[in-house]
Amino acid sequence: METWFFENQTGNFGIKIRIKSILFHEFSDYQEITIYDTLEFGKVLVLDKAVMFSDKNEFVYHEMLGLVPLFSHEKPERILIIGGGDGGVVRECLKNPFVKHIDLVEIDKKVVEVSKEFFPEIACKLEDDKVRVLAEDGIEFIKNISARGNEDEKYDVILVDSTDPVGPAEGLFKRDFYEAAYGALNASGIFTAQTESPFFNQNLIKDIGKIIKEIYAKSSLYCASIPVYPSGLWSFTAGSKKYDTKVINESYKDFDFGRLEKELKYYSPEIHHSSFVLPNFIKDIIK
Amino acid sequence: METWFFENQTGNFGIKIRIKSILFHEFSDYQEITIYDTLEFGKVLVLDKAVMFSDKNEFVYHEMLGLVPLFSHEKPERILIIGGGDGGVVRECLKNPFVKHIDLVEIDKKVVEVSKEFFPEIACKLEDDKVRVLAEDGIEFIKNISARGNEDEKYDVILVDSTDPVGPAEGLFKRDFYEAAYGALNASGIFTAQTESPFFNQNLIKDIGKIIKEIYAKSSLYCASIPVYPSGLWSFTAGSKKYDTKVINESYKDFDFGRLEKELKYYSPEIHHSSFVLPNFIKDIIK
Repeated sequence: METWFFENQTGNFGIKIRIKSILFHEFSDYQEITIYDTLEFGKVLVLDKAVMFSDKNEFVYHEMLGLVPLFSHEKPERILIIGGGDGGVVRECLKNPFVKHIDLVEIDKKVVEVSKEFFPEIACKLEDDKVRVLAEDGIEFIKNISARGNEDEKYDVILVDSTDPVGPAEGLFKRDFYEAAYGALNASGIFTAQTESPFFNQNLIKDIGKIIKEIYAKSSLYCASIPVYPSGLWSFTAGSKKYDTKVINESYKDFDFGRLEKELKYYSPEIHHSSFVLPNFIKDIIK
Repeated sequence: METWFFENQTGNFGIKIRIKSILFHEFSDYQEITIYDTLEFGKVLVLDKAVMFSDKNEFVYHEMLGLVPLFSHEKPERILIIGGGDGGVVRECLKNPFVKHIDLVEIDKKVVEVSKEFFPEIACKLEDDKVRVLAEDGIEFIKNISARGNEDEKYDVILVDSTDPVGPAEGLFKRDFYEAAYGALNASGIFTAQTESPFFNQNLIKDIGKIIKEIYAKSSLYCASIPVYPSGLWSFTAGSKKYDTKVINESYKDFDFGRLEKELKYYSPEIHHSSFVLPNFIKDIIK
């Protein structure tokens, strides 16, 4: 038997992954959810026909979205994750020694359910005492916190772990949302979002970079290599009110990163710094 | 019309590229050569069903294979390129101020011919006075130079710009060849070869790394992001008799890299250094 899943990543480029079986397929209230067992990558989660992650290389995206912003913040106690119902970014955030509370706001509770069932190594921390999972619209959630202006509700770090800017995630790539996120952050808060491929989505990266630069005191872009994502190179855009996201904060000078080494397959202090070193063609996008 | 070229990159993973037309197709004495015009990447060269490069992102591979070894060498005057009949690495090497002579030994003269015809911006320096193009077997060529031991014939840098380790390039991934290359290098010479994907070809990278470490005083691995290659992340293995390939040699301290900036879309002094900063999972492969 030779059975393939195809993903059209742009109108003119795509990938194919050979599958062993279809483990799950259902239309939730928000999207089409498919889980394949594959020969190359282990289990793969697909939302609206786009690969979200595979067992075999989910570590790159989750470590890099979770750890880079957190380790550049002096004391990230309260974290908000928008999307990310699989729990991968939650798992990574809990490796930071200062984290006291994580709110995960995932619009589609079905993603949380199937992740717990099919990806227990990724969803393993969703039941942690420090974690609260809310099945709500992340945009509304952030707007409400921003509007109320209650300091106790605000966050040190907001991470956007979204699907592509079509369908349910569309509003997460708009100025309104970035402004509301600013309002939902503490005075030294950091905002970070996945912002697609530097090879295929240059206009999107440019536009978001411009907005973040206007709103936040500091803005930056970093990249990581993710084989199942379009072009294999992925970008993350960070806006920061105070801290330089490019460097690990002084507050971790006694933190033993070596102790985490077995748990970290991609991130390290050296990778933190080098992920901000951009090839000239990417520097050109955001200049 | 919707027409696609498919590449099976592993038995269980592949890419598809939508094509506008087939510009060239022929079986040479060594391999099947196809050139497509594509919607996403411009013109694409395919050898034995594997994408070698596209107009739109050839710069990454060519800059990174050519420039990293050269700028870590104090004075790379004589360069040997095995394979690389398209001329992309030649074009990059000539950006180094010390280069006096380049021998390009490409077994398949048809690759040189079609590159000149269809990829003039890549092959543009093949007629340069400093460049000699030989249609010979690179393995024999290197073995002969090594055996003769004539110092005047030896090289400062040897670069292997090969196809995958099947078909005509198979011998370029063997210990015999690496030993002969050592013998064809000057006393402070540097050898560098493309060594496939850190996600898909871990055993190959491990094996080559081990051999290079045994033969050369210094060995190192660096990576670059290439969208049309399997996994999008590519590795290069360097063996060096004297210089540390991870750093730009002191001899370039007055060299104006800024002047080259318009010509360099990927490489920069910062990228030179950061390309050797490896994620933990890649460090694990070569440790």
